Amino acid sequence: MKKINSAEILCVGTELLLGDIVNTNAAFLSRELAALGISVYHQSVVGDNPERLRVALEESAARCDLIITSGGLGPTYDDLTKETVAGFFGRKLIRDDKVMEQIKTFFAEMGRTMTKNNEKQADVPEGATVFENKSGTAPGICIEDEESGVTVVMLPGPPRELEPLYREKVRPYLEKRCESVLVSKNINIFGIGESAVENILRPIMEKASNPTVAPYCAPGEVRLRVTAKAENKDIARSMCDEMIEKIMKTEVRDGVYGIDADSIEDVLIKKLINEGRTVATAESCTGGLIAKRLTDVPGASSVYLGSCVTYANSAKEALVGVKHETLEKYGAVSEQTATEMARGVKKALGADIGISTTGIAGPGGGTPEKPVGTVWVGISSEKGDRAVLLRLSPRRERSYLRTLAASNALYIALKE
Amino acid sequence: MKKINSAEILCVGTELLLGDIVNTNAAFLSRELAALGISVYHQSVVGDNPERLRVALEESAARCDLIITSGGLGPTYDDLTKETVAGFFGRKLIRDDKVMEQIKTFFAEMGRTMTKNNEKQADVPEGATVFENKSGTAPGICIEDEESGVTVVMLPGPPRELEPLYREKVRPYLEKRCESVLVSKNINIFGIGESAVENILRPIMEKASNPTVAPYCAPGEVRLRVTAKAENKDIARSMCDEMIEKIMKTEVRDGVYGIDADSIEDVLIKKLINEGRTVATAESCTGGLIAKRLTDVPGASSVYLGSCVTYANSAKEALVGVKHETLEKYGAVSEQTATEMARGVKKALGADIGISTTGIAGPGGGTPEKPVGTVWVGISSEKGDRAVLLRLSPRRERSYLRTLAASNALYIALKE
Repeated sequence: MKKINSAEILCVGTELLLGDIVNTNAAFLSRELAALGISVYHQSVVGDNPERLRVALEESAARCDLIITSGGLGPTYDDLTKETVAGFFGRKLIRDDKVMEQIKTFFAEMGRTMTKNNEKQADVPEGATVFENKSGTAPGICIEDEESGVTVVMLPGPPRELEPLYREKVRPYLEKRCESVLVSKNINIFGIGESAVENILRPIMEKASNPTVAPYCAPGEVRLRVTAKAENKDIARSMCDEMIEKIMKTEVRDGVYGIDADSIEDVLIKKLINEGRTVATAESCTGGLIAKRLTDVPGASSVYLGSCVTYANSAKEALVGVKHETLEKYGAVSEQTATEMARGVKKALGADIGISTTGIAGPGGGTPEKPVGTVWVGISSEKGDRAVLLRLSPRRERSYLRTLAASNALYIALKE
Repeated sequence: MKKINSAEILCVGTELLLGDIVNTNAAFLSRELAALGISVYHQSVVGDNPERLRVALEESAARCDLIITSGGLGPTYDDLTKETVAGFFGRKLIRDDKVMEQIKTFFAEMGRTMTKNNEKQADVPEGATVFENKSGTAPGICIEDEESGVTVVMLPGPPRELEPLYREKVRPYLEKRCESVLVSKNINIFGIGESAVENILRPIMEKASNPTVAPYCAPGEVRLRVTAKAENKDIARSMCDEMIEKIMKTEVRDGVYGIDADSIEDVLIKKLINEGRTVATAESCTGGLIAKRLTDVPGASSVYLGSCVTYANSAKEALVGVKHETLEKYGAVSEQTATEMARGVKKALGADIGISTTGIAGPGGGTPEKPVGTVWVGISSEKGDRAVLLRLSPRRERSYLRTLAASNALYIALKE
């Protein structure tokens, strides 16, 4: 078969057309294909309807080298992707004993009973390659059609089956069928806006064709993706490194908190483990979000002692020892309260660093002096105690403001 | 123009094809159209490429009454949806003074400077209807093409602009152009699996054609959506109510925690406000997730006092007074520790109800006696103190187990 240059994603499922689920598979597969240098010009969704699926296959097959489908491989009567694709290429379905064994083993391990329905999941189009699915009963199936030059890879719909199956089986298969290799590295930047980053890097970005440099936004963050294309991974990787070195010589450097980092919290936990320091948090407006994000990181328990989510004023006094007079005189959203919270939780939990947040996340609660978006982040460490004022946009919604406040607090802790 | 029965969603944006963003617009619009009884048989995504967009428009226009596009209405040179759609219907773009005023006002309010680029956002295809966008500079635009009988509604790409614009302007417009009215109500169920719900309701579901009854899954939850079609909303609403009454006579009733509820936490907060009771939480394995979810609910502060996220054992002792001997003898993940945590946080914060979690969320940390997925939920109230054991599937990933543990704790609090 010829090399693969272009692909389309074709998702099958009436639940997608009803909007009952968000199509994360299309984004996942597109991102993965882009990373291999395979161009995706169309994503389509059709329901569990063989006729519309056949038309969509026909359209896609005329336009690209590879079609990846997701969904419609289940055991019920309306799961018809395999039957339709096999029919499209004029291939029969044949019962595959090895697949049948895998399905039986899967059911046995889950302690569930296999039904008659599930047997049809062991049917495979003749001449197809099977990719074993360790997270479910529907295997991935690959048909290479010599006549049209088109390859179709069918994957199960649930992301927790599709994603590992892609990583373990499909990606290695596609890597062998690509012209060249693409390597991407990400520079994680916090606290510098996208347009400021673009302004600083415009001279570099405009000249960059290989590697390319592209910015992506998240709340408070910019991710710069550097992508190099080369004949092998080592060359591509060192091309990326050279570009990163060039970028790190600009002012952008001041906001860089990691290369290929998962998140600020991940970088913070790793740094604290390295330094043998511990952290504790006291949260008001972020209401547990910082704790949640820190404990999302496996292994956080060795350096993250805990949090006091002091939502009520009484909790601020009882748990982290904020003085009653401080709350009376300056209010809950104040430099003084934030500082006392950070100091108090550090002491209460015996941590090296205490971090706190107190602010107004909205939608209600704002005043002219303290509008929605006013947030104080307190920090207490061996370097002393202080608080930093954030003025976040009152036009943003509650969840965004809370995310941004939590990210700022984590970033401040990282720099401490 | 004729009534609208069928629609397609056509999203424009290279960032979607690169997988840089997940297409939540397609899900949002599909859900909204389903709620109006408009059938959606295709969703498509193309890049910022006029030729491919034109082909996609042609294909869609041949198949349906309404095309909703998202994206490509921005101020830059590669935003070409409006130009392409206008060209497709042979219409010129004309500068609209009223839209220009709105864009100027928007910039003034945001305190930003309007650039020359933004002026093109005030161009409107001749004869089109403009839907004002209060959250951004690109208005929604509607073309009714008498000749083909096709209507195209163009919306800006960012969800925080598209969603309010749809609700405020597009939905009322479409309601007038629909044959009949659809009303949906959701029954929220916790702790009964989807297949068990289906087993109980099969006799009802099989007979139901109007209203229809369909189950949807979330971690630990099933949402039953009852949808009725009628000539007006009042009739449709009472048809839903009748069906809900019928369902509430079955065993499913035992797991119902709300009708059209946003979430368990939302129902819990409202119930506590009603009863004038307060709650506090002590979290170990959920690490702040319960606090985060409770404080997602605006107004939670009146009944939710706070949380002690006692991730480290030392924090369990220091913050919520778990006895050192308890931790030594029974371990952190035990009935005794969970009970002491719930009792301790209730006392520390002076709440009416204390809720706690302690367990093993994985991926590491499991033992043969206490495998990953073992979670104790403690509860302390005027009814006494106790703990409930959850045995969640060790095959699930950390984030899923944490979500499920938090949901169970919130549900237990709701029943207290």
